[in-house]
Amino acid sequence: MKLITKLQGQVMQKNSRCVVLGASGFIGSRLCERLGVKYSNVKAFGRNRMYEDAFKTCKWIEGDFADPNQIANAIGDCDTVIHLVNASTPASANINRVADLQANVVSTLNLLDACVNSGVKKIIFLSSGGTVYGVPSIIPTPEAAENNPITAYGVSKLTIEKYLSLYHHLYNLDYCVLRVANPYGPYQTNKKNQGVISAFFQHAIHDEPIDVWGDGTVVRDYVFIDDVVDAIDLAISNNSAYKIFNIGSGAGISINEIISTLEQTVGKSIAVNYLPSRNMDVPISVLDINRAKAHLGWSPKVSWQNGIVETYKWIKSSGL
Amino acid sequence: MKLITKLQGQVMQKNSRCVVLGASGFIGSRLCERLGVKYSNVKAFGRNRMYEDAFKTCKWIEGDFADPNQIANAIGDCDTVIHLVNASTPASANINRVADLQANVVSTLNLLDACVNSGVKKIIFLSSGGTVYGVPSIIPTPEAAENNPITAYGVSKLTIEKYLSLYHHLYNLDYCVLRVANPYGPYQTNKKNQGVISAFFQHAIHDEPIDVWGDGTVVRDYVFIDDVVDAIDLAISNNSAYKIFNIGSGAGISINEIISTLEQTVGKSIAVNYLPSRNMDVPISVLDINRAKAHLGWSPKVSWQNGIVETYKWIKSSGL
Repeated sequence: MKLITKLQGQVMQKNSRCVVLGASGFIGSRLCERLGVKYSNVKAFGRNRMYEDAFKTCKWIEGDFADPNQIANAIGDCDTVIHLVNASTPASANINRVADLQANVVSTLNLLDACVNSGVKKIIFLSSGGTVYGVPSIIPTPEAAENNPITAYGVSKLTIEKYLSLYHHLYNLDYCVLRVANPYGPYQTNKKNQGVISAFFQHAIHDEPIDVWGDGTVVRDYVFIDDVVDAIDLAISNNSAYKIFNIGSGAGISINEIISTLEQTVGKSIAVNYLPSRNMDVPISVLDINRAKAHLGWSPKVSWQNGIVETYKWIKSSGL
Repeated sequence: MKLITKLQGQVMQKNSRCVVLGASGFIGSRLCERLGVKYSNVKAFGRNRMYEDAFKTCKWIEGDFADPNQIANAIGDCDTVIHLVNASTPASANINRVADLQANVVSTLNLLDACVNSGVKKIIFLSSGGTVYGVPSIIPTPEAAENNPITAYGVSKLTIEKYLSLYHHLYNLDYCVLRVANPYGPYQTNKKNQGVISAFFQHAIHDEPIDVWGDGTVVRDYVFIDDVVDAIDLAISNNSAYKIFNIGSGAGISINEIISTLEQTVGKSIAVNYLPSRNMDVPISVLDINRAKAHLGWSPKVSWQNGIVETYKWIKSSGL
């Protein structure tokens, strides 16, 4: 498999400018690497970059999302803001819910005010397809399903979605929410306790046992990072009346199936510690992606097998 | 019409204790007056009381909802918490959304943590039937309708509902959300820019013109205060699997119809200044109350005509 090199989205208008907030993380690094090739005016705002090479075609701005002045400066001359900031994880958010709300929602309100003040036209927000629905009432789960998150992380994401809708109503600030399933692929590391595929690969390579919460039957929807980047690129120019899209593979894979796939890929068996299940983990999460297919013009292009091979290549080459 | 004197709910367990937070406002004053007669262990927590007589059968505690220590002390020995606090109005919330979020949602998170720590069993939260749905997709609007608030006030109320669901999941803290329509009746004043009926009455009595945003065709669902108090009392002992109930009359009345009814009641015509409509006002809001009828055992008992007469009597007697 070759990496997708041509993005799916239409080209932004010639003089339009775009800023990626939360650029230093997994999705941001890959997004900036690929957007920067396609567009000439991409700014990347974030904290510590692990992978400087990913940003060589962007203008890098080091800063803190919690500082309203830094945010106002970063977005100042932009038409489009891509908001990838995650100041917490599902596990950490549940431990301190007030801190999670401050770091994510309050900071985003400051961002939205800055967007209105500086004339930003559109904001793309990466929400969480795995947490905003809570225990899903229907599988695969469509965007119109009930939202009863069982993590504070999911409540924060949902609240930001509601404020985006409010600002659109009050100020005509356009927006697009992508409820992304479990992304995986190049630039995902094990540093922030996110991303089981990357974590499992690294443990397997170093012959370390992996920890699994529960019996490994928990099912998630895994989507390759380049498909997520494609969805973001399409969202920039999308004019659908729909503002919220699920972005996933549309298929479910259990933790035990992941382990099996990784054992075949790495060519050795992986030792597993099965631990008690956590009450923040829904038993199954698989997204219905038909709206994105019909109204965003998007569909996932990278198969599970190819995505895993590509991820493994990247992990080995990066020396993780 | 006589005021309803017997509450609809079952009696709480003998030794159970209840605290009303945000007790000094319109709903809190009437609720405390009536709960205090029925139950022996009611505490009322709030800021300035306008009507001290309403609290003569409760234990009054003056305090600030924003202070976590005061809240922890107030709820300390209680089984049931009734959360009526509104630190903003729909209009003020939209002006400073961060302040609204801090005063309402962050303070509620601190309350919920205190509830978990002190062993509170149940929390009753008064949400907003008029704002959590936004522009309704269906009239009358059932609880399962989409939530796209067009005021920050509605976003805050909705976010609190989601945190209640989260705490129920994480800590088994039981809860009941009452999405109350537009309440009116005794103890509603014009002090906080809330309550058109009270405001219009006061203007009519003093021969002052009233201001109407828009052309007066905006339709709302008005519910008499004693029916709201009944719903809260029923929620205390309710064990339904449903946690969210609309509380309204189930019928819509326009601003112009209100003016007409008030003119008949007061016996004189009311001068009206029609002003431009506001973008935070949905054109129509009428609640579907069938769930509350079936699963809360509640229905509104006071007709529009009787409620208006009772309200007028109270306004005249209170010298407003």
